[in-house]
Amino acid sequence: MSFYAAPIEKLMEEFSKLPGVGNKTAQRLAFHVLNISKEDAYQLANSIIEAKEKIKQCSICQNITDVDPCNICRDPKRDEEVICVVQESRDIVAIEKTREFKGKYHVLHGAISPMEGIGPNDICIKELLERLQKEQVKEIILATNPSIEGEATAMYIAKLIKPLGIKVTRLAHGIPIGGDLEYTDEVTISKALEGRTEL
Amino acid sequence: MSFYAAPIEKLMEEFSKLPGVGNKTAQRLAFHVLNISKEDAYQLANSIIEAKEKIKQCSICQNITDVDPCNICRDPKRDEEVICVVQESRDIVAIEKTREFKGKYHVLHGAISPMEGIGPNDICIKELLERLQKEQVKEIILATNPSIEGEATAMYIAKLIKPLGIKVTRLAHGIPIGGDLEYTDEVTISKALEGRTEL
Repeated sequence: MSFYAAPIEKLMEEFSKLPGVGNKTAQRLAFHVLNISKEDAYQLANSIIEAKEKIKQCSICQNITDVDPCNICRDPKRDEEVICVVQESRDIVAIEKTREFKGKYHVLHGAISPMEGIGPNDICIKELLERLQKEQVKEIILATNPSIEGEATAMYIAKLIKPLGIKVTRLAHGIPIGGDLEYTDEVTISKALEGRTEL
Repeated sequence: MSFYAAPIEKLMEEFSKLPGVGNKTAQRLAFHVLNISKEDAYQLANSIIEAKEKIKQCSICQNITDVDPCNICRDPKRDEEVICVVQESRDIVAIEKTREFKGKYHVLHGAISPMEGIGPNDICIKELLERLQKEQVKEIILATNPSIEGEATAMYIAKLIKPLGIKVTRLAHGIPIGGDLEYTDEVTISKALEGRTEL
């Protein structure tokens, strides 16, 4: 049984689809929208549409971007010979915050996970291999998460790339096992970069 | 310094304006939007705009509604002689869920609060008095919150309405069902003692 007018019910339903938003929070958010100015509500709605319309994957590194190639790929000051491979775009932000890494990136958009039915062809490994044929890369840093899936993905990629004569390294275990790269502090990530080991 | 493309930064900024949403949550929500289908994103955005465009205040009871008069005001089965006065539209939902009340409502949209500079003219008391002149009302139930502001608002309205010869009642205060006497505050226990009923 619904107690609210249909447009409010609909808005609460939409909000409750967001991660970490339950019914009570969805209700609070819906009433917040009703209370803010029409201009602010349109701004919120438009920013959702704009992000959805403008954000694409960089044709080189697969990072999410509004320009193609992305700002990092087109930056001539960045070292083209080192590629840091990460699972998600968010991980790039975590590494960029250390200001320690001056190479380029490659985003896999996931990790190999047989449990979830995600195989090597479901993440952007193919695109990485294509880059290695075109670009003069000397080192690949595998910065996948220190989880079972992340480790397996790193092992899989290392096996493919080592025969090409490219140095393959892995972030040092300064990052706690089971942790998430996105939520790791800058100092720990710096240490992990510093102590990276060859596979 | 921004690490994300502008449309993502903008979306994160918009999400972080929502109540109870910090930077990390805003980031998670923004990436959620990037991951869902374009259709779902548009649905979310449109439901915000639709709620904002379609929801108005009922010209009779001031409740938020998409039809005017609202469904409760136009319902011939509801008792027109009893009006329950609440602070917010959400309070109506709380009372409707009991299925005990069959009268009509009036939403004040706030409570008198000199501390926050909210006076009697800033909430919908005037509209209530206008209703009492037009409608044949026998009882007003003041269901404002049992807070200082809610009590003050109830007292203020009672003083205005009593001279009109209309019965004015207030929701009973007491120990909540399922509550524990040991953990109930003194004021609530005093109120419960005061309002004790004969068995």
